[in-house]
Amino acid sequence: MRWPNDVQIKEVGPRDGLQNEKKRLATADKVSWINMLSESGVREIEYSSFVHPKWVPQLSDAHEVGRKIKRNPNVRYSALVPNRKGLELALEAGIDGASVFMSASESHNKKNINKTIAETYSVLGEVIKGAKQANKHVTGYISTVFDCPFEGKIVPQQVIRVCDQLFEFGVDDISLGDTIGTAVPLQVDQLLEVVLSRYPKEKIIMHFHDTRGMAIANITRSLEYGITRFDSSIGGLGGCPYAPGAAGNVATNDVLYLLHGLGIKTGIDEKKLQEAAFFIQKKLGKALPSKSLAYAESQH
Amino acid sequence: MRWPNDVQIKEVGPRDGLQNEKKRLATADKVSWINMLSESGVREIEYSSFVHPKWVPQLSDAHEVGRKIKRNPNVRYSALVPNRKGLELALEAGIDGASVFMSASESHNKKNINKTIAETYSVLGEVIKGAKQANKHVTGYISTVFDCPFEGKIVPQQVIRVCDQLFEFGVDDISLGDTIGTAVPLQVDQLLEVVLSRYPKEKIIMHFHDTRGMAIANITRSLEYGITRFDSSIGGLGGCPYAPGAAGNVATNDVLYLLHGLGIKTGIDEKKLQEAAFFIQKKLGKALPSKSLAYAESQH
Repeated sequence: MRWPNDVQIKEVGPRDGLQNEKKRLATADKVSWINMLSESGVREIEYSSFVHPKWVPQLSDAHEVGRKIKRNPNVRYSALVPNRKGLELALEAGIDGASVFMSASESHNKKNINKTIAETYSVLGEVIKGAKQANKHVTGYISTVFDCPFEGKIVPQQVIRVCDQLFEFGVDDISLGDTIGTAVPLQVDQLLEVVLSRYPKEKIIMHFHDTRGMAIANITRSLEYGITRFDSSIGGLGGCPYAPGAAGNVATNDVLYLLHGLGIKTGIDEKKLQEAAFFIQKKLGKALPSKSLAYAESQH
Repeated sequence: MRWPNDVQIKEVGPRDGLQNEKKRLATADKVSWINMLSESGVREIEYSSFVHPKWVPQLSDAHEVGRKIKRNPNVRYSALVPNRKGLELALEAGIDGASVFMSASESHNKKNINKTIAETYSVLGEVIKGAKQANKHVTGYISTVFDCPFEGKIVPQQVIRVCDQLFEFGVDDISLGDTIGTAVPLQVDQLLEVVLSRYPKEKIIMHFHDTRGMAIANITRSLEYGITRFDSSIGGLGGCPYAPGAAGNVATNDVLYLLHGLGIKTGIDEKKLQEAAFFIQKKLGKALPSKSLAYAESQH
């Protein structure tokens, strides 16, 4: 077994992590926290979302945060962009990258963004085109690529259809999301065998949630397929929207423990990341679900 | 990739799980709980320890528990047995199996059981012989097979030396423990390549702790080597003795989610196991660290 030499982590804590947190953070705290993340060695941070504030009030200060953070030239600062209006605001705020999102499952897409998949394509096609014209990096997130909370199993062909369309619109890469954290390594096999027979592995990012504690095993399995790009959230910040109290995004801290233990380089300083995790735990007033963070804290 | 068809789980919650819990459980509660576990379909339960009560007061009722539990003929009830005196008590209490334990690391062995490895051999040799004469199944636990909190990396040759000696004494099988939960799948590769070139895989049990969230990935990796026997603890009961608040044994619930998701049979009913986990959570007055249990609870 040959593991990859380098892996690139995208830190999604300030967006995917924070969006499900009820306690509102002050803009100044977000800025301090993102600045800490910027200095950890991570090369991409999804720092906020330009979804309408009505839907995600926690991230309603996306514009101000984008203006106030100290930009590290080695970091790509991206944000979630749902539509043309969001793109205008995001460009004004100075994003480096735009993320667009939709589901592989028709029902999840409808519940989540209140549009059919076909309707979503026409909106996202416009956003992707606009972002590329503005010379921005564009990532397409596809959620529920393994299982949908409403439809059950999602077959790889359904994921491929959405990938084809997003790549045709011009996305640079695609992040495949185990949104409800149900996948086991067998499902990773089944999906990646199909996906990697069609697209180069450099264009595929894996995005696991740790709802049932399977994320690190799924990442290990993805590495065995040569995948070198993963999304993760500091401390495992971000619950599961379908299950209050359950875990959401896989924790960057646990991912780093795995990768560094396998001898894989990430460029990220684990200690600096821990400090940023302790900072946000304190601001949110609660322990985050990462086990390696809890261990580190017990030794602190 | 071919996964094994069947895997055998040994439930160690009532012993390895409980021994680090400060809150003393009533004997009657232990008996009810072990009876619930007995009905879950699990084929082996390590139900207590015959270590001197001074060392593990929580398990000082090992004899009474052994007498009072309702024996399911499909379950092997085993207990930890440290020495000749413990063996006498354990045989009186009606154990089906005896577990003996020592470390692959000289320093950990000294700290943990206050004997050198050589001194431990002479004690365990006697216990193993006595238990085999009484026609009991005997498992040898070897702890710190990957890393020692005092010595650092443990080389596979060191583990092999202890395995050789225990097998020579007559143990039926050996459980290899990642006692401090530091291993990543690369270390599983390094150890299992050496171990399985020497002993049949049926005689090797893997025992992972989830202190840094790596256990499910390490179990997946072990399955890839054909390992079909694992120790785990219901709900992830049992903290890390070196780190208050950090996770200990991998959770049986998470292991079952993985195995059943991979299409591997265990004979265990996940729902019955969940009920036993909810029961013990209530008795201990705290949430257990299993993520799949927390998810199940949020949906309960």
